[in-house]
Amino acid sequence: MNMRNLKLLIEYDGTKYSGWQVQNRPKARKTIQGEIEKALKKILHKKAKLIGAGRTDAGVHAKGYIANFKTINNIASVSLQKALNSLLPKDIVIHRVCEVPLRFHSRFDAKSKIYRYSVAKRSFPLAIGRDYIYYFPFKLDVDAMKRGAKYLIGRHDFSSFGSSSSDKKDPHCTIFKLDIKSTNQKIVFDVEADYFLYRMVRNIIGTLLEVGRGKITASGIKKILSSKDRCRAGPTVPAKGLSLIKVKY
Amino acid sequence: MNMRNLKLLIEYDGTKYSGWQVQNRPKARKTIQGEIEKALKKILHKKAKLIGAGRTDAGVHAKGYIANFKTINNIASVSLQKALNSLLPKDIVIHRVCEVPLRFHSRFDAKSKIYRYSVAKRSFPLAIGRDYIYYFPFKLDVDAMKRGAKYLIGRHDFSSFGSSSSDKKDPHCTIFKLDIKSTNQKIVFDVEADYFLYRMVRNIIGTLLEVGRGKITASGIKKILSSKDRCRAGPTVPAKGLSLIKVKY
Repeated sequence: MNMRNLKLLIEYDGTKYSGWQVQNRPKARKTIQGEIEKALKKILHKKAKLIGAGRTDAGVHAKGYIANFKTINNIASVSLQKALNSLLPKDIVIHRVCEVPLRFHSRFDAKSKIYRYSVAKRSFPLAIGRDYIYYFPFKLDVDAMKRGAKYLIGRHDFSSFGSSSSDKKDPHCTIFKLDIKSTNQKIVFDVEADYFLYRMVRNIIGTLLEVGRGKITASGIKKILSSKDRCRAGPTVPAKGLSLIKVKY
Repeated sequence: MNMRNLKLLIEYDGTKYSGWQVQNRPKARKTIQGEIEKALKKILHKKAKLIGAGRTDAGVHAKGYIANFKTINNIASVSLQKALNSLLPKDIVIHRVCEVPLRFHSRFDAKSKIYRYSVAKRSFPLAIGRDYIYYFPFKLDVDAMKRGAKYLIGRHDFSSFGSSSSDKKDPHCTIFKLDIKSTNQKIVFDVEADYFLYRMVRNIIGTLLEVGRGKITASGIKKILSSKDRCRAGPTVPAKGLSLIKVKY
């Protein structure tokens, strides 16, 4: 029996989870990784260790999360997908299972990740879809946010947008894209980077929203970035508006 | 103190509710009307009786439900909206409160209602947004559904699409519009009629989906309609895909 490396494309509603990664502590809350590993054990009759593309925080969603695991089981990819979807809770769905070369590693091989943050354009909360979008009750200047966002593109020290509990030594990341699209209903921020510091997307969006409502100028973003001081940036926006859209390899 | 008539524009996520209407029976489940009347009593210090635009079933949502009530309280409309939104559970939101003429009646004065039914285009379930869309795992011929839908436009006896438990004597309704829009992600059905029999939208969509997957021909819809026999139509699709979009007056 040969060793196989299986890659999973995963969608999840993170509302009820403590993020992707299994927590090794007493009374740990449920995690996406934990739920899928539990289902895999039932199917494969053996413990499988999932390697995920990275951590996601409690309450953050994913439409295109990638994880892989190695197994000597010869179950067909489609059968494994169906078996997982029938065992998993309704808020975790496997889009695809495929066999990849043994050297493939979901985290180390990732070239970039795209996160999307959604903000509802209205002056009162939402009932429908309230777990997937952040309602920000102030009028927003989208052009000012777009001007501010430009300062963040490229390779920078993002210490101002990291969090104190970040365990990453090097605070340098490269943002390839930071698109802001505004429709009648909502404003959507798409951020693509090679790496993200802890809570970096939510801190960036929180700061851009301060630009949007006029509390920080667009060029203020440049100063905040170069200050490398988390205290100068805006607040961390809620997890529920954030979704991991795609991992690029 | 003068009597006032206040109209509410209401959005709700019906997932956890037994529909709009208060149920007068022991161990009755929560209803949208019940929750809003409870909040109104706290604000007005007096029981208020809400008149709704019509019943919605358990699990059905609304983006534009209309209800009205009479009061001698002189609270400002905006203050009432804010007070209601702060007291109501997160799955019920008041969009607007406005004063209307005393003769206005949410149900009797309604000229038509627009319902929307959403079907996900994919071969496996959804995690994100799963409470708001129905996943139908078969490939659908949208053109055939559009041809079938044409037979339903106009004034007809809709007994074939009613339900046995319907308490409506006259099964005639007029469908003004039945639009089907298909995108990459989903198929959306918009149905506007002057009146709907019990579960009529869900029975119509269930039948059109059978046309879409080739189990019933488009012209079969004409035969089903004229048979006035519920047994000949398709199944009732789940409530979660349905939302009351607008009530026209």
